[in-house]
Amino acid sequence: MDRRTFSRRMLVGGAAAAATGVTSLSLGAVEASSAENPPRTAPAGGVTRRLKMYAEKLPNGELGYGFEKGKASIPGPLIELNEGDTVHIDFENLTDVDASLHVHGVDYDIANDGTRMNKSHVEPGGTRTYTWRTHAPGRRKDGTYEPGSAGYWHYHDHVVGTDHGTGGIRKGLYGPVVVRRKGDILPDQTCTVVFNDMMINNKTAHNSVNFEATVGDRLEFVMITHGEYYHTFHIHGHRWADNRTGILTGPDDPSRVIDNKICGPADSFGLQIIAGERVGAGAWMYHCHVQSHSDMGMAGLLLVKKLDGTIPGYEPRHVAGGAEKKTGDKADKKSAEKDAAKDTGGGAGEHQH
Amino acid sequence: MDRRTFSRRMLVGGAAAAATGVTSLSLGAVEASSAENPPRTAPAGGVTRRLKMYAEKLPNGELGYGFEKGKASIPGPLIELNEGDTVHIDFENLTDVDASLHVHGVDYDIANDGTRMNKSHVEPGGTRTYTWRTHAPGRRKDGTYEPGSAGYWHYHDHVVGTDHGTGGIRKGLYGPVVVRRKGDILPDQTCTVVFNDMMINNKTAHNSVNFEATVGDRLEFVMITHGEYYHTFHIHGHRWADNRTGILTGPDDPSRVIDNKICGPADSFGLQIIAGERVGAGAWMYHCHVQSHSDMGMAGLLLVKKLDGTIPGYEPRHVAGGAEKKTGDKADKKSAEKDAAKDTGGGAGEHQH
Amino acid sequence: MDRRTFSRRMLVGGAAAAATGVTSLSLGAVEASSAENPPRTAPAGGVTRRLKMYAEKLPNGELGYGFEKGKASIPGPLIELNEGDTVHIDFENLTDVDASLHVHGVDYDIANDGTRMNKSHVEPGGTRTYTWRTHAPGRRKDGTYEPGSAGYWHYHDHVVGTDHGTGGIRKGLYGPVVVRRKGDILPDQTCTVVFNDMMINNKTAHNSVNFEATVGDRLEFVMITHGEYYHTFHIHGHRWADNRTGILTGPDDPSRVIDNKICGPADSFGLQIIAGERVGAGAWMYHCHVQSHSDMGMAGLLLVKKLDGTIPGYEPRHVAGGAEKKTGDKADKKSAEKDAAKDTGGGAGEHQH
Repeated sequence: MDRRTFSRRMLVGGAAAAATGVTSLSLGAVEASSAENPPRTAPAGGVTRRLKMYAEKLPNGELGYGFEKGKASIPGPLIELNEGDTVHIDFENLTDVDASLHVHGVDYDIANDGTRMNKSHVEPGGTRTYTWRTHAPGRRKDGTYEPGSAGYWHYHDHVVGTDHGTGGIRKGLYGPVVVRRKGDILPDQTCTVVFNDMMINNKTAHNSVNFEATVGDRLEFVMITHGEYYHTFHIHGHRWADNRTGILTGPDDPSRVIDNKICGPADSFGLQIIAGERVGAGAWMYHCHVQSHSDMGMAGLLLVKKLDGTIPGYEPRHVAGGAEKKTGDKADKKSAEKDAAKDTGGGAGEHQH
Repeated sequence: MDRRTFSRRMLVGGAAAAATGVTSLSLGAVEASSAENPPRTAPAGGVTRRLKMYAEKLPNGELGYGFEKGKASIPGPLIELNEGDTVHIDFENLTDVDASLHVHGVDYDIANDGTRMNKSHVEPGGTRTYTWRTHAPGRRKDGTYEPGSAGYWHYHDHVVGTDHGTGGIRKGLYGPVVVRRKGDILPDQTCTVVFNDMMINNKTAHNSVNFEATVGDRLEFVMITHGEYYHTFHIHGHRWADNRTGILTGPDDPSRVIDNKICGPADSFGLQIIAGERVGAGAWMYHCHVQSHSDMGMAGLLLVKKLDGTIPGYEPRHVAGGAEKKTGDKADKKSAEKDAAKDTGGGAGEHQH
Repeated sequence: MDRRTFSRRMLVGGAAAAATGVTSLSLGAVEASSAENPPRTAPAGGVTRRLKMYAEKLPNGELGYGFEKGKASIPGPLIELNEGDTVHIDFENLTDVDASLHVHGVDYDIANDGTRMNKSHVEPGGTRTYTWRTHAPGRRKDGTYEPGSAGYWHYHDHVVGTDHGTGGIRKGLYGPVVVRRKGDILPDQTCTVVFNDMMINNKTAHNSVNFEATVGDRLEFVMITHGEYYHTFHIHGHRWADNRTGILTGPDDPSRVIDNKICGPADSFGLQIIAGERVGAGAWMYHCHVQSHSDMGMAGLLLVKKLDGTIPGYEPRHVAGGAEKKTGDKADKKSAEKDAAKDTGGGAGEHQH
């Protein structure tokens, strides 16, 4: 059993997810079976699920979303859907101010808008069910092509502080949504990076958000921007396609392959990389490439380990901008995941399962 | 006769255009005939037209372009062309400063550049004919592929205030240009949104630019940015393809489907949405998603009515940022168009032909 | 022999390159032979080359990279590769501070990262060999598609001033990298434009960076952004495809054709245009379209000459923002190239050969 097979089985088995608590919602995934070991792909959707979501105040005064009481994180938990799925989200507002759940990209009628104007916010202590639907691409009656819901989307508050949720977003009320198309390649791990003003996932410079992987892992990044400023997202040693999935569809896909992308508030995109592909293990920086932003600490690490768990040249104590805090390499994936969840309030290391 | 057929016939019949005055130039359109009711598509171009264009001072001190004296608007009127068309624009400068007409995307020789450097501006009271040409895609003699002129472009002044037209643009001297390819799907309505510094179409926060449509209408947005700042354009409940037309070409189109896009000065793009598709009627906000910008009022409404003319949950008096001023739903499209023209100086609600 | 054939032969012959010194590295190019005069295209890669690169202080206190001692330029010299090529760069730091060579897009292991964190920088007077590899697209063992290295990339310092190279980049330590795919169309000339804070190629407003071409030349722009601000890159009278090569692949390529593009620090893209195609000769401005930026002089000229060497309507003394300094038309390409190299320290007029 090679390393990737091991990683996949462990993840599919759910042990990792169980260990970190329920931090993501996945509506079914299929394991492809082939001698050639093809990647797992997303199944057709069509499932309807019910989900509980809380907004609550964190000990440090920030706000977060979570699937369980007392488990709120920044960013909020990943919500994964397959085109055709519907999810009913029973949202409970445990904060002391009006709050809401506004989503990008998926289908919802106006009563689920999450705006004050449409009276779809929730008072302190109140509950409201938001229903999000998704659909596969197809043909309309008039013969025109209708796009599907697949995309790297996100949810956020739309009422705290201002009628556009400026206060809620600043304090952490945001999270990722991934809608997959049947056949989309599934990653081994999903990493959410939110550039929110000068912070990554609301962490300040001396608490950098790092991700750990082993060479060969298929990593998915969900990159979301919030707040006031524009940024450019850059990863060292890895690149992606600037298209729907972040993966080229084949030789005829004209999309640009990039390793740096400008983004502004509420932009979101996804990408998949094979950790260390053609470049090997290492402490690969990712950062905002606006010079003052990276200098102020908008940087983290993609720690790509060799199969033996080591990272060549990596000394945990030094990182650009003084942002490093991880103290060692983790050969054991499960404990690494636990630590990652702890470090970031469960928000920085969601895992596909 | 279903609602869409009605809308289409009315628009094709020209009654709406006649009622609002000449606010757009369309060089021909064909009505497709089919039992399945396919959308109308753009014809081949090749027409040469002559057009009058004025720059004038508006009562409030702003500047605008218009096809008729005293009818200048911000943004200026939509100029629609089909690839292969040529338009001669007899431009008359009725302002008291040098002004010009500089265009993006189409073909023009250097004497039509609209810059002071190329002596192609016009003194107060003067006239100059600008000639814009367009072409269909094809093969060059060397076998390489030459792109066509199709695109969502725009025109603006290049000399008022500074040699880059900073003063003219700030005061309102800009407008949309759409060049269509044979076969491009024609919309039922074209909505122009210009993010110009912190304004939309030069309207301040308490005069939001709203658009009205009925569920099922095919709306086209021409989104243009001007001025000094970057923005992100977002619409609630609707999304588009990030490609040439804003419409996916089919299942093999790898373009990202988005509902939020960063844009900077002179960027322009177009998109088409089916009003309320899969989400229904409602007061759907569109806004800049830079938090301080939306909080200051860079927001408007896409008012999508049911077939009976009502908008669920909509109370005209409240809108995020206090930007709403429309006072009621308009069941009669014709009068709605008249009002829209009046509200925005004719500039916010251009309609296809 | 028509003009293009002449230009091509001269360039292929290497006379121009010889005249301007070694300012670019090209790992082989093939001349297509056909009665129809098709464009030259890039060959398959696979070559390994060794290259010397210096970082040094320029007389005005700025810093530059160069292939030869005393020949540093801003931007640094163009490095051209074909997918499959490897280049070993013996880098010597002639400045009095730690410096490095960090590259985007290509393959390198972590010891070639050019960061202080990975101890891959070079002390004053020191030397280090950086190895960059590239690869063609293909299929992975699991059947998924792996993108190739082709792209418009760039290199820059990552340690001067701050751990993100903010000081080095500001002073000029950056340059273009182009990786071509077999079959990519080769240009007659490559023009590098770097928007670095409010400067183009570190030139202030009164020293604009101009490019000269003759109608029909195939020009390639490598557009790179650095520093702190976002910009929008715009050229008058010409446009390009917003995809990998800047050239549409054919009628099915859904990419937007644009003439203006927002970009932020470390973004890079390439485009090819046929000088004066459908618009003729002229002094065509290119500039940042952020109004205050162009007003402050972020503008230059693409001087497109007729076959007789003249430029209609062009008076060298006047340019928007007062940025012009070129004093005449150059009918002789070779001397024009010499001048271009001199004006810009060899950095603004790299030529394909």
